[in-house]
Amino acid sequence: MVLKSFIEVEAKSHFPIQNLPFGVFKPEPSSEARPGVAIGDFVLDLLVVSKAGLFDGPILGNSDCFFQPNLNKFLELGRPAWKEARSSLQNLLSATEPKLRDNVNLRDKALVPMCKVQMALPVAIGDYTDFFCSMHHAKNCGLIFRGPATPINPNWFSLPIAYHGRASSIVVSGTDITRPKGQCHPTENSLPYFGPSRKLDFELEMAAVVGPGNELGKPISVDKAADHIFGLILMNDWSARDIQAWEYVPLGPFLGKSFGTTISPWIVTLDALEPFTCGAPMQDPPPLPYLAENEPKNYDISLEVLVKPSGEEESHTVTRSNFKHLYWTITQQLSHHTINGCNLRPGDILGTGTISGPEPDSLGCLLELTWNGTKSLCLGGATRKFLEDGDEVTLTGYCKVRVL
Amino acid sequence: MVLKSFIEVEAKSHFPIQNLPFGVFKPEPSSEARPGVAIGDFVLDLLVVSKAGLFDGPILGNSDCFFQPNLNKFLELGRPAWKEARSSLQNLLSATEPKLRDNVNLRDKALVPMCKVQMALPVAIGDYTDFFCSMHHAKNCGLIFRGPATPINPNWFSLPIAYHGRASSIVVSGTDITRPKGQCHPTENSLPYFGPSRKLDFELEMAAVVGPGNELGKPISVDKAADHIFGLILMNDWSARDIQAWEYVPLGPFLGKSFGTTISPWIVTLDALEPFTCGAPMQDPPPLPYLAENEPKNYDISLEVLVKPSGEEESHTVTRSNFKHLYWTITQQLSHHTINGCNLRPGDILGTGTISGPEPDSLGCLLELTWNGTKSLCLGGATRKFLEDGDEVTLTGYCKVRVL
Ligand SMILES: [Ca+2]
Ligand SMILES: [Ca+2]
Ligand SMILES: [Mg+2]
Ligand SMILES: [Mg+2]
Ligand code: NI
Repeated sequence: MVLKSFIEVEAKSHFPIQNLPFGVFKPEPSSEARPGVAIGDFVLDLLVVSKAGLFDGPILGNSDCFFQPNLNKFLELGRPAWKEARSSLQNLLSATEPKLRDNVNLRDKALVPMCKVQMALPVAIGDYTDFFCSMHHAKNCGLIFRGPATPINPNWFSLPIAYHGRASSIVVSGTDITRPKGQCHPTENSLPYFGPSRKLDFELEMAAVVGPGNELGKPISVDKAADHIFGLILMNDWSARDIQAWEYVPLGPFLGKSFGTTISPWIVTLDALEPFTCGAPMQDPPPLPYLAENEPKNYDISLEVLVKPSGEEESHTVTRSNFKHLYWTITQQLSHHTINGCNLRPGDILGTGTISGPEPDSLGCLLELTWNGTKSLCLGGATRKFLEDGDEVTLTGYCKVRVL
Repeated sequence: MVLKSFIEVEAKSHFPIQNLPFGVFKPEPSSEARPGVAIGDFVLDLLVVSKAGLFDGPILGNSDCFFQPNLNKFLELGRPAWKEARSSLQNLLSATEPKLRDNVNLRDKALVPMCKVQMALPVAIGDYTDFFCSMHHAKNCGLIFRGPATPINPNWFSLPIAYHGRASSIVVSGTDITRPKGQCHPTENSLPYFGPSRKLDFELEMAAVVGPGNELGKPISVDKAADHIFGLILMNDWSARDIQAWEYVPLGPFLGKSFGTTISPWIVTLDALEPFTCGAPMQDPPPLPYLAENEPKNYDISLEVLVKPSGEEESHTVTRSNFKHLYWTITQQLSHHTINGCNLRPGDILGTGTISGPEPDSLGCLLELTWNGTKSLCLGGATRKFLEDGDEVTLTGYCKVRVL
């Protein structure tokens, strides 16, 4: 029998009782931020649930991890605590459990309509890393910037390439992004261009949120890496392609990326994603032993990007991709990150890199979709090569329930 | 007349009353970390000074900024607070002021012998950026890795190149660093090497510590940048050259750097450094308007790196350089960093990049000194191409008082 909640959840909702993603919200603009989970059109207030003594398991019973303005303390507790929270909450919200269902007073306090809350960053982010794990994306970028000789650098197949991103400018979904100013390539014999970026782009990414970290000097083995990942978020790694192209040799992307990165307010846990695991891609050459997993797995998550052009009413889907297209798994990413002894901390974010698929309509950014602005994309009446002022970009993802 | 302290300070001490660098320390291993300033062979405990009501100026009189385990809150207050603290402390420590000098009880509590304290990271570091501002270093790296055609990329002369480093693995001076494992270039037809780095290096750097930050989307103009810099620290950006060489194309350094970065416990304020300013280098081509300063200035800080080879008694000077060799000023670095709207936060660290001078004995890392291991460096009886296990590296810097 399928688990059901006493809260009515529409069939097309992203937040059935099987999901229960974690976030941080303010019930009213003046309230303190506190943890919550999404259920249907409501946010369940975990501060209220905790105060009511409804977390009564061995780990969370006496913890103040939900009396916090972010999820870092909860994340630090690790998977046993996460599983305990999930099972307590699925029980509390289930159709057959009266504790919350029949307590009108408590329900009024604990369940806040989603349309009324203000979402905040779910974690305090110590460090943000961005990987480069889609082969299709790597190949297309190589073709565009370096030509057909060796579009993908040989190191790409030996290790999950990554760079450090800017943590301070990560914002929660809904925050306006200001078009960055910067320097771009000079045209022949002239000074570098300086002004607003003319190639503003989105990047369809997801990111792993780190749970328990590791000590400096103590790598995490690839087969233990999953225990250090709480869940996944959606991430839009806004990029100014013209600034990036001029600055990135030899030390990598800097100001072309650091003006803003948007993440989803909700973290979907790996436990919720477990039914949607799938095989990982064949890796050729086989990974070095420290990256070879006992059970390599990927996740079948459908992803979509929609753009609502400035001044128009409707959003248009510009790409349909899938998390499973990633060549390097999130556990390989995390383990590689620590192989040199680098320490991760709870709340750190590991972006996957742009998730492009093999088809022309599955490419994860405008750079690829318009081939660096050499062709236009139709969005109803409007056309776009790159983003224009006032455009709205929406990333969304879902896992399909298998019909039994 | 030269300002003197009632505390005896040896002529060769780095900590006369004219310096007064800020740090964070524990008087005993079990005490809470708190701010302090260095004076001669003592640390003045600012928590004690604050509790005794000896900060009586308009800004610090009612502030709890020294009741903190790091300097972030003090840094956020900005230069007026820093100047007030400096003047209160120079007064309190001066030979002619009896308040502390003649209060044996208070002196016992407030002045802790430096040999007894345990220093901690002076700031909580939100983001760490590393620039690439020495032309000599850029040129040598280009010659070593890309050859004589264009050792320095054209963008280098138009903007201060930088990348984001890893904040979590920044440690305070004295912390052991573990030789990182990682992947390195395959030799022909073979797999990539995997194992302990065989090219472990230091990098002689300094770093600016950010005071008040800026809002996302609001750049800091180059002529206001100095107000956002509290002071300078010494920084050793440990680097694994073989890991770096294999991984860094196209997204820049990652695991070749992130296994550890050592900073000095003491932050020397820009106010203390003011007597040691000097002209900034001529920039050709002239910087774009947003990087053009009214009064470009640099700092005349003598820098030295010493290596004590494992098992030997003595340290040997391997390089003598100077901060004034930097091509881009710290104010240009900071302003460029924000030109795209990127927000800085109090406690952020902006490394200068390796500070190499023009002479063969002024190069800031072994990569340059041994020309990527093609020649050896003599250290008394020992020789080195790169660092060996048990070696100790010391960075030091000083400004010479002008003899009047
Ligand atoms: Ca970004
Ligand atoms: Ca380092
Ligand atoms: Mg990206
Ligand atoms: Mg460096
Ligand atoms: Ni960071």
